[in-house]
Amino acid sequence: MAKRPVIIDTDPGIDDALAIAIALFSDELDVKLITTTAGNVSLENVTNNALKLLSFFGKDVPVAAGAPRPLIEPLVDASNVHGVTGMEGFDFPEPKTELLLKENAVNAMRRVIMESEEPITLVPIAPMTNIALLFSMYPEVKGNIKEIVLMGGSASRGNKGVMSEFNVATDPEAAKIVFDSGLPVAMAGLDVGWNALVYPQDSEKIREMGKTGDMAYCLFKKYRGGSFGTGLKMYDSCAMAYLLCPEMFTIEETFVDIELRGEMTRGCTVVDLKGYLKKAPNAKVCTAIDGDKFREWFLDSVSKCI
Amino acid sequence: MAKRPVIIDTDPGIDDALAIAIALFSDELDVKLITTTAGNVSLENVTNNALKLLSFFGKDVPVAAGAPRPLIEPLVDASNVHGVTGMEGFDFPEPKTELLLKENAVNAMRRVIMESEEPITLVPIAPMTNIALLFSMYPEVKGNIKEIVLMGGSASRGNKGVMSEFNVATDPEAAKIVFDSGLPVAMAGLDVGWNALVYPQDSEKIREMGKTGDMAYCLFKKYRGGSFGTGLKMYDSCAMAYLLCPEMFTIEETFVDIELRGEMTRGCTVVDLKGYLKKAPNAKVCTAIDGDKFREWFLDSVSKCI
Amino acid sequence: MAKRPVIIDTDPGIDDALAIAIALFSDELDVKLITTTAGNVSLENVTNNALKLLSFFGKDVPVAAGAPRPLIEPLVDASNVHGVTGMEGFDFPEPKTELLLKENAVNAMRRVIMESEEPITLVPIAPMTNIALLFSMYPEVKGNIKEIVLMGGSASRGNKGVMSEFNVATDPEAAKIVFDSGLPVAMAGLDVGWNALVYPQDSEKIREMGKTGDMAYCLFKKYRGGSFGTGLKMYDSCAMAYLLCPEMFTIEETFVDIELRGEMTRGCTVVDLKGYLKKAPNAKVCTAIDGDKFREWFLDSVSKCI
Amino acid sequence: MAKRPVIIDTDPGIDDALAIAIALFSDELDVKLITTTAGNVSLENVTNNALKLLSFFGKDVPVAAGAPRPLIEPLVDASNVHGVTGMEGFDFPEPKTELLLKENAVNAMRRVIMESEEPITLVPIAPMTNIALLFSMYPEVKGNIKEIVLMGGSASRGNKGVMSEFNVATDPEAAKIVFDSGLPVAMAGLDVGWNALVYPQDSEKIREMGKTGDMAYCLFKKYRGGSFGTGLKMYDSCAMAYLLCPEMFTIEETFVDIELRGEMTRGCTVVDLKGYLKKAPNAKVCTAIDGDKFREWFLDSVSKCI
Repeated sequence: MAKRPVIIDTDPGIDDALAIAIALFSDELDVKLITTTAGNVSLENVTNNALKLLSFFGKDVPVAAGAPRPLIEPLVDASNVHGVTGMEGFDFPEPKTELLLKENAVNAMRRVIMESEEPITLVPIAPMTNIALLFSMYPEVKGNIKEIVLMGGSASRGNKGVMSEFNVATDPEAAKIVFDSGLPVAMAGLDVGWNALVYPQDSEKIREMGKTGDMAYCLFKKYRGGSFGTGLKMYDSCAMAYLLCPEMFTIEETFVDIELRGEMTRGCTVVDLKGYLKKAPNAKVCTAIDGDKFREWFLDSVSKCI
Repeated sequence: MAKRPVIIDTDPGIDDALAIAIALFSDELDVKLITTTAGNVSLENVTNNALKLLSFFGKDVPVAAGAPRPLIEPLVDASNVHGVTGMEGFDFPEPKTELLLKENAVNAMRRVIMESEEPITLVPIAPMTNIALLFSMYPEVKGNIKEIVLMGGSASRGNKGVMSEFNVATDPEAAKIVFDSGLPVAMAGLDVGWNALVYPQDSEKIREMGKTGDMAYCLFKKYRGGSFGTGLKMYDSCAMAYLLCPEMFTIEETFVDIELRGEMTRGCTVVDLKGYLKKAPNAKVCTAIDGDKFREWFLDSVSKCI
Repeated sequence: MAKRPVIIDTDPGIDDALAIAIALFSDELDVKLITTTAGNVSLENVTNNALKLLSFFGKDVPVAAGAPRPLIEPLVDASNVHGVTGMEGFDFPEPKTELLLKENAVNAMRRVIMESEEPITLVPIAPMTNIALLFSMYPEVKGNIKEIVLMGGSASRGNKGVMSEFNVATDPEAAKIVFDSGLPVAMAGLDVGWNALVYPQDSEKIREMGKTGDMAYCLFKKYRGGSFGTGLKMYDSCAMAYLLCPEMFTIEETFVDIELRGEMTRGCTVVDLKGYLKKAPNAKVCTAIDGDKFREWFLDSVSKCI
Repeated sequence: MAKRPVIIDTDPGIDDALAIAIALFSDELDVKLITTTAGNVSLENVTNNALKLLSFFGKDVPVAAGAPRPLIEPLVDASNVHGVTGMEGFDFPEPKTELLLKENAVNAMRRVIMESEEPITLVPIAPMTNIALLFSMYPEVKGNIKEIVLMGGSASRGNKGVMSEFNVATDPEAAKIVFDSGLPVAMAGLDVGWNALVYPQDSEKIREMGKTGDMAYCLFKKYRGGSFGTGLKMYDSCAMAYLLCPEMFTIEETFVDIELRGEMTRGCTVVDLKGYLKKAPNAKVCTAIDGDKFREWFLDSVSKCI
């Protein structure tokens, strides 16, 4: 079977690191391009982290740096959580800087999409500024995109604001452009990630799985030491899980929109499961995850990242 | 022990009917006044329903009619769900019209509060227009109010809009005035009500419990026949449960505000459990309910309504 | 001819003082009641000022104190402009406290309106909290109200915010309730007041006109010394001018609404002169004033205030 | 003196046509590029119109087509006013299609800016989608931009909504990106254009001025026949007037922001002349125009367009 061609749009970040690892080592995915965007930490740092990860994984995927800030409002990153660099606590090799393209992320995405024989799947696991600019600058790319599979949003509560998830709330206008794009969108949101858990005994197994497992263990130990006991949440990996093992999710086709105007709810993902807004569905939303299947899939996937 | 004096502000509605029954027959509550407000159906109908219920229960509590519409926006009632009168499917006796006061609800509440030796507890289980007008007209009443225990809002999703609960979303400005009042507020919201369930076998028991049980059975059969199999949700009774048996709830002190401005999230109850808004707590919010305890308490309570 | 019965709702303030004087000494108006609301300065101070003015003018009109704050948001008064008391710079006699009713403003308005043989005209020259509460509490009063003639709003720029006038912006929800009331509303706004000017030579004449002129001269000298040279703006008196001499205004029937939600435009009076919103007219808006006629009328009116 | 290099971003439209004519025939301006954006009518039509105008004027300026729609919301054009093509009523020669670049507007602007020895002045006289995308995609261009001189916005009332001007209100997010850009911005708004009038006697003179005058006469006769008697408003030409003859304007340095959220005021240009928002100035705003000077300058300018 031909591998499915994907572009990963990311802001690593440890959570992104695991998702990228799974994609890079998957037999089913062909990662054509990695694009970066400011989000968890600054554009410079996330781009450097992407290059470090490729060096560490020994993979030669081109990287293109994208938006240094959201479309409308200034960047409010998560460096309070992630530290300035976003990937501390493990001694990565030097970044493979020769993989960095001169093109910016949007132009690189356009080129890769237009040149691809097979329609491309976009996998944003970060604020969606790059994708929004891509669609605004080059609407013609839509003709060769198969699907957008994103980690972001929430059908209930948030983690950046009371009712808003980080990736969407960091650039709500960009997220709206993506959901309004007319393309097939699949959303694995925060509330699904809450149940994509890796437990202490799993962490110990992961630690034994070779270099990727060891790296993951070290990073999670540093960043999420507090939730080691109760279960680590693997948000970004859910996007890869949707691509590779969708049967672990309960999926509903529904209308999704982004609240741009609320005083306290700006950036809220409005997932209209009950049809209050009387709009046609524009997304497949993961509303539940089979935690056991996820854990099994995740461990199996990480074990292959060698 | 002295009974706790309460005023119930309500828009019956079958769900209200059960909550009112429990309050009227409770040994611990002294229902001083029932005030009505447009909500589930029109003011005329909810007031008539309140008088019918008192006639049916054989109780002589004064009733005062209040706001025919929300403060700012026109009324969007729920007569599509509740039918025009709001209490069809059971043959009630004639309304006890002699209980209806000439005073409007706000003036009656003021009088009862100011005349009471003991501070009054307000129990709104409807849109909060009356309470908001009370505080705006007569701020002096706050000195003799013990607590506001309300059914309304939601810490997650809604039932009038995607992210907004009916009682709050019907008059968001009024709800904001209540949460901003500076008084102790306890909130039993929609998401708690989802787990305040009465199962088929319980329904059969209720049916056997005498006239109130029979009435409840008939009304629920008519209105919520569809969820008989999966469990009937007893939203308004949660406010009474909080008053009478608070130990069945998980309760968090937190800051609550009402989103007034969102395009799709107006009326959302913003329950800031994680402290994103950095405001001092202004409410006790029920975040979970022990379903078994609720069911036991509910059946026991209904059995006393004779 | 019978005098026209009016209720003045006010927050004096010097500008209100002149408008009240003109009304009290007019042959055509019968001031039935003066109600006060927090606005320019605190409720306590504006009420005291109203009583001082009645004492100074030697008039026995009942006064009722109303809302100490806007419906939804905290009061942001103009004491930075008006000083704490709002009427400094002139030695007023003791306030005529015996004129102060025990009833609050809303209940007093209701009584006066319901008891009046002839329909009452309401003249709000302050934030409209009292009027909004009146209509919400007692919708039945609408049947005996002839017209609402208000000073407030603007068809262009503002003086509290960039696009919002003080009386409307201090309580935007209340203003919306007034414009939505279904009653005839006439609006003399800020932008008309900009051209209701009294020039230096006029001020000197006013000074010679007896005690009211002297008082006015002293207060304006203190508060608006800076604009003595370029012309003093008589905002609140425009409402009286509309009542007594409407032919000085250009008047357009149009739809008016209040923006409640803008981030920088909350409180903007949206005066839809071109029909962009496709709504039926709900107000007569003064769009221009004949400055010469105003000046003549104003001097003549003040000269009678003795 | 070296000519000042400019890029005109436009959506012709007759009003744009005159402004473009003046720029093309000016001794002081060097029009490096014309970019088009959907606005008055569709992108296809405005681009075709630009090419027709160049053909008519006999000028070889490259044209690049830009955004077919605003960033966030669907296009609401003004074809109800301008007709489908936007330039009816005159028999233009065939469009000079060979001037149309293969690059889109944003990439063409970037190239021209980066290649220019002298900093470029951008002159948007249309919705600012292209400029917003330019700054989001290629922030590096800011280093070689001298100034943005735009026709758009209003310090008072609007012409698309009650309080919003067409160019800003068509893409409010884009306008915000421009005003937030950190670059020097000069704004000639709608309210200044209201006083940039050409009177009947002037129109007759223009008609005699050769082919451009004749074309202008025909188009204005068709589109604005109604205001021929009272004065034709030359909005877009004000941007050129600012570039070529700024002394006709009263100019204030002030803070300008765009209201994105109001229910009726979305797209309002908030021009904070009084400093209510306490922000540092980010724009030079034309607050008044000397009508006589404008008329003289305009006639003189059109007379050179041959």
